[in-house]
Amino acid sequence: MQQYIENNRDRFLNELLDLLRIPSVSADSKFKNDMLKAAEFVRDSIQKAGADKAEIYETAGHPVVYGEKIIDPKLPTVLIYGHYDVQPADPYELWNSPPFEPVIKNERIFARGACDDKGQFYMHIKALETMIATDTLACNVKIMIEGEEEIGSSNLGTFVKEYREMLKCDTILISDTSIIANDVPSIETGLRGLTYVEVEIVGANRDLHSGVYGGGVANPINVLCEMIASLKDENGHITIPGFYEKVGELTTEQRDALNAAPFDLEEYKKDLQINDIQGEAGYSTIERTSVRPTLDVNGIWGGYIGEGAKTVLPSKANAKISMRLVPHQTDDEILELFTKHFESIAPASVKVKVMPHHGGLPYVTPTDSVEYKAAELAMEESFGKKPIPTRGGGSIPIVALFEQELGCKSILMGFGLDIDALHSPNESYGLFNYYKGIETIPLFFKHYAELKQ
Amino acid sequence: MQQYIENNRDRFLNELLDLLRIPSVSADSKFKNDMLKAAEFVRDSIQKAGADKAEIYETAGHPVVYGEKIIDPKLPTVLIYGHYDVQPADPYELWNSPPFEPVIKNERIFARGACDDKGQFYMHIKALETMIATDTLACNVKIMIEGEEEIGSSNLGTFVKEYREMLKCDTILISDTSIIANDVPSIETGLRGLTYVEVEIVGANRDLHSGVYGGGVANPINVLCEMIASLKDENGHITIPGFYEKVGELTTEQRDALNAAPFDLEEYKKDLQINDIQGEAGYSTIERTSVRPTLDVNGIWGGYIGEGAKTVLPSKANAKISMRLVPHQTDDEILELFTKHFESIAPASVKVKVMPHHGGLPYVTPTDSVEYKAAELAMEESFGKKPIPTRGGGSIPIVALFEQELGCKSILMGFGLDIDALHSPNESYGLFNYYKGIETIPLFFKHYAELKQ
Repeated sequence: MQQYIENNRDRFLNELLDLLRIPSVSADSKFKNDMLKAAEFVRDSIQKAGADKAEIYETAGHPVVYGEKIIDPKLPTVLIYGHYDVQPADPYELWNSPPFEPVIKNERIFARGACDDKGQFYMHIKALETMIATDTLACNVKIMIEGEEEIGSSNLGTFVKEYREMLKCDTILISDTSIIANDVPSIETGLRGLTYVEVEIVGANRDLHSGVYGGGVANPINVLCEMIASLKDENGHITIPGFYEKVGELTTEQRDALNAAPFDLEEYKKDLQINDIQGEAGYSTIERTSVRPTLDVNGIWGGYIGEGAKTVLPSKANAKISMRLVPHQTDDEILELFTKHFESIAPASVKVKVMPHHGGLPYVTPTDSVEYKAAELAMEESFGKKPIPTRGGGSIPIVALFEQELGCKSILMGFGLDIDALHSPNESYGLFNYYKGIETIPLFFKHYAELKQ
Repeated sequence: MQQYIENNRDRFLNELLDLLRIPSVSADSKFKNDMLKAAEFVRDSIQKAGADKAEIYETAGHPVVYGEKIIDPKLPTVLIYGHYDVQPADPYELWNSPPFEPVIKNERIFARGACDDKGQFYMHIKALETMIATDTLACNVKIMIEGEEEIGSSNLGTFVKEYREMLKCDTILISDTSIIANDVPSIETGLRGLTYVEVEIVGANRDLHSGVYGGGVANPINVLCEMIASLKDENGHITIPGFYEKVGELTTEQRDALNAAPFDLEEYKKDLQINDIQGEAGYSTIERTSVRPTLDVNGIWGGYIGEGAKTVLPSKANAKISMRLVPHQTDDEILELFTKHFESIAPASVKVKVMPHHGGLPYVTPTDSVEYKAAELAMEESFGKKPIPTRGGGSIPIVALFEQELGCKSILMGFGLDIDALHSPNESYGLFNYYKGIETIPLFFKHYAELKQ
């Protein structure tokens, strides 16, 4: 098996590079055709890997690619999940090389989606090819690659409900997360949920001269800033009434275990080139970014943002605001709390609108399950080290839905690194991680099949 | 004279429309050639009006157009000032007709610059033509039309110093302000000054994944919002230490006189389609927009502002912030106070930069001067009503410089209206106001010459 991977090393890489050349940005409608191209590319790859079936399923949004290889109904079935859509690449000017023209530098692949999630799900297709070619496939495999993860998987729920029978499986394997370091393997046992909204503050019915009207009427930008500022207190606590009500506090033991993971604050600050960190009082950086909820403005705009100076008192101002949620908050409930509160703090001098974008539930996976043990053994075998269970700060909203609809847990066996710069300019993925993933995945199947007997 | 204006009514209008077709936006370098075109148009118009001299003077920025008609050294000399540059026209989508394709609707000219200031300074060129053609010119006339008023007249100071001799005059007449209503003439006796800055807040060295880093590091947008919000207290007072130190409070008499000007709050709210006004506690809308200093965010941007949702924790956020100043604040001093304060309130988790754009001093003109009396008599004669002295909220930074360099006061005899939507989409100027100005200006010359004898 190792031999097969070795022999096809270059092809495995070049195929991924071809996939990375397709700008499959789901958030921006002008890339609609590229989304389709990417879906077809994935379908063909699954086909060539030796699957019995590989098809594109239309949805109300971007299509889902599904394929399967059923070798023996008596064997356990693993469902692979991933997404072929990527985050928008802007700001383009900050990329050292064009985001959709992948380049290899210092043993890393630089391109939008290199890690999130094209590089990571494609490892599974290559692992599948390897297992079939070397006749070492130990389980039945189903593989579902969607195109709307970066915009909230809004249509996958319907898809999963509709094809529940087809998707029936014993566990779900997902590579869309990170390890602590290449010599410190880890498995994410929890994810944060998400509530994402866009807000609009409208003042006068037109842009005004800031000299003629300035001081006499509300300035929507000033008002928006004041409203956003009021959403957190001086300790970094979110002030939305009821926001923390459902948040499960960790036990001292859980906190200690979590904080036991290697973390170097000086390295962290050096990597980000910041003089100081900032966050909720009373919690460590690891806790702030994994088991605590957050509120971040992801984008803001209003008034004159062109060259030079314009003395305008703008008619409106907008912002995109997202909140990361932790067990047992629910995105619907937080959306409702946010909306109610945000509308309530708007002064009478403006009109406020809150438009929900998308959300997802937080998730926790037990470390005593068969699938977790299988992942643990697989990583221990390929890395030569037992992986550390961690809690991730990101969100894969769909895992909660899988549990609900398909009745099984997901294993988050990702191979990325913090330095991969997900969602940022110059996203990259290490060649070591790509090949290590292709090598580790078959081991998961092997151990999972054994443990299930 | 009236007859001459009558006979040339259509030509006077069509010439202005031609001028309005030139997109002379000084703030945006891509209009550099149009700026030159506009300057040449103005020079030729002054020439054709019958001036002895009309030339374009290069500056470090956009050129100044200067012309003169000296009929008798013993007669008083009036310097006309105006500007041929206009504000940027965006947002374009909010214009009912293209900003640089003027249309006449309901007796109004719709175009960027229709009132501010092309429509208003062009009245002077047509008035000059009329006085020369009808041999009724009662004073020497000098006329200086610049191209950088909307970006702070940064090079006019040098020009005025260099050509102090050429510009020597007894008074300065400017039409770049408004009257209360077509049947309520008024003259602005004061203007607010301006300090305009651009600020930048920088957090991490790159855009980050809001899930992986959210909650652990400063979000520049949140920080910027908090810093901006903190610049005003709950009473709308500006919190910058020393900001109000030099502000001259009005006497009860002055306040009463100011508030005596007709103002209908319901009409005001209806026109702007707002449910409530907002401003500094303890002051009327008229006071808030004329004799009180302000702080407004004119533009803000940061993070992802495209279609859809992007869960990014941005690297930086920017804003354009301007402050309107009143006697006896100075723009340099306020710039210094703002910069010092803004830098001091930035948390250690971010870097802050304050970049000054431009500024100007506030200005007050005495109502007991010869030139004010002349303007008063001229308007009384043409409107059939004595004009009310008002205080304007806008800024014409240059008038303070004129007084300093040329040693004489400026008369702000403008003919605009609040509904002209200066700096806004669908800027317009009433035909009544255009022709009334052309009719009133010669009367100013007549009365001024008489009063000076």
